[in-house]
Amino acid sequence: MASVAEKVVAGDVRAVARLIRDIDDGMPEVREVLKELYPHTGKAYVIGITGAPGVGKSTLVDQIIAHLRKRDKTVGVLAVDPTSPFSGGAILGDRVRMQRHSMDPGVFIRSMATRGHFGGLTQSTRSAIDVLDAMGKDYILVETVGVGQDEVDVVRSAHTTVIVVIPGMGDDIQAIKAGILEVGDIFLINQADREGSDKTLSDLRLMIEMDQKKYDQGGWKPPILKVQAVFDKGVDEFLEAVDRHAAYLAETTGSLNFRGSRDKVRQELGEMIKARLIEEVLIRLTESGEFDRAIDSIVKGKVDPYTACEELVLPVLAR
Amino acid sequence: MASVAEKVVAGDVRAVARLIRDIDDGMPEVREVLKELYPHTGKAYVIGITGAPGVGKSTLVDQIIAHLRKRDKTVGVLAVDPTSPFSGGAILGDRVRMQRHSMDPGVFIRSMATRGHFGGLTQSTRSAIDVLDAMGKDYILVETVGVGQDEVDVVRSAHTTVIVVIPGMGDDIQAIKAGILEVGDIFLINQADREGSDKTLSDLRLMIEMDQKKYDQGGWKPPILKVQAVFDKGVDEFLEAVDRHAAYLAETTGSLNFRGSRDKVRQELGEMIKARLIEEVLIRLTESGEFDRAIDSIVKGKVDPYTACEELVLPVLAR
Repeated sequence: MASVAEKVVAGDVRAVARLIRDIDDGMPEVREVLKELYPHTGKAYVIGITGAPGVGKSTLVDQIIAHLRKRDKTVGVLAVDPTSPFSGGAILGDRVRMQRHSMDPGVFIRSMATRGHFGGLTQSTRSAIDVLDAMGKDYILVETVGVGQDEVDVVRSAHTTVIVVIPGMGDDIQAIKAGILEVGDIFLINQADREGSDKTLSDLRLMIEMDQKKYDQGGWKPPILKVQAVFDKGVDEFLEAVDRHAAYLAETTGSLNFRGSRDKVRQELGEMIKARLIEEVLIRLTESGEFDRAIDSIVKGKVDPYTACEELVLPVLAR
Repeated sequence: MASVAEKVVAGDVRAVARLIRDIDDGMPEVREVLKELYPHTGKAYVIGITGAPGVGKSTLVDQIIAHLRKRDKTVGVLAVDPTSPFSGGAILGDRVRMQRHSMDPGVFIRSMATRGHFGGLTQSTRSAIDVLDAMGKDYILVETVGVGQDEVDVVRSAHTTVIVVIPGMGDDIQAIKAGILEVGDIFLINQADREGSDKTLSDLRLMIEMDQKKYDQGGWKPPILKVQAVFDKGVDEFLEAVDRHAAYLAETTGSLNFRGSRDKVRQELGEMIKARLIEEVLIRLTESGEFDRAIDSIVKGKVDPYTACEELVLPVLAR
């Protein structure tokens, strides 16, 4: 009998689907499988795609898949939806929208919601990327809904992070742009036929050029591209920009296994430690009844939560 | 000399501003101050306001302040912007937009970005709410940009959570609605004069009525209100809905100190434990050099990150 890890490496679609669901559900058994898979990772190229709701990310992902398939590349897609923590209904429409690829064995699409899981979204997404990587997919597209800290963390696992905007998104777009500028490797203005697309372009350009000094010192200057995903316009130019960014990364990090860069490992290990810590400790405090007793004391006004927290946390740590 | 906590309780604006900045910067000294302030909290009514970028949350908050002031209520505002984790430029324009209240001693407005801080956004926001509460503000408005897990957690600290949408926000609005439905106590359709507002209303109503069973059993049924914040239309009706929700909470929890409800305490203490744990452990692993040594081993391919994580986490926990 082949192990789960062996099945995944052999490309067994059902084994992969079950493993990703187990990751999403926070099953502790997945850890041993992930250890076994790790030596088979580091080959895929990961593209993170983020942007506010309504900018057409799903349509774009659908077109990118089609173009990568034309290049004879295999593609894995993770649609990450942290906005559904309760209902468990991750990205309702996505599989429907992407269904033209559903019969293609070179494409594997999965949604993740990461509900009821101590570890959190970033950790599960990263593990799921490892799985698709070990499965042998050439490209992995990670699509996230929204623009919070969660999404920023998720897309930081990518080699190339793509920020999608549309023209005329109102005032707050300024705040978003400021926040995501640092993580964006490529900016896409989708629905570029809409009014205001030149204004959006010049706004973005202005913000990017505020970092001109960085680019003068050899830093990557994020290109801004206009696309119309619905009409399949601009997608090839986008993939060329991804190629240029990949070449830049290979040159500056000296390796095609971007996974191995110190910064990425640092960030990845930090997240993993957090997730594991919380899991271990919350389980212990819950099982021992200490957590519930502390809640009682706070409710009865016997102790403030800051003190109660200290009294729970400090003893679980080795001195 | 008065202590920091005494100054806060006395309403010293400079002490409050400095304390909130220290919380935002993750200074460990704030913990003792928060313990001292805790007995003075539990009096303010907290309203969380969230929604995608561009729906006009700031204008709405500005109008709500004006209406609460007409009722002779004092107001604290926290504008939380987790989308600026790097640049530190929290909600650039907000203070400008709300400046008509800047000379009013009954109004206190602060932005938080929570950058470079282990504990995370939810924890700092909750502490800042405690500060404004202890300071004696009658209402605290917490405005968040975006719709990720972070924001959901932040608004869960509120008594009443308000979800703001605008008509015609495109496909992904469906996914958001599904995600935030469970946390929304009141839904506002802002810019209700725009095309498609009836469609948005009926979409929302449909989704809310999927939980009809809950309402039949006495659960709170979120009202959906149309407003036009720019023209100051619908804000009084909104505040009446907040009053009704407050009355519902008082009736169902049996207390006006909503802080003391078991569910809120459980969630609050859980978040606090997570934040404190991560802080304690990451500092130890960083200072001892173990974290860096593990990164080296992973980069050199001597160990996989899953195993390295286990080897770091398990020993720091008391057996």
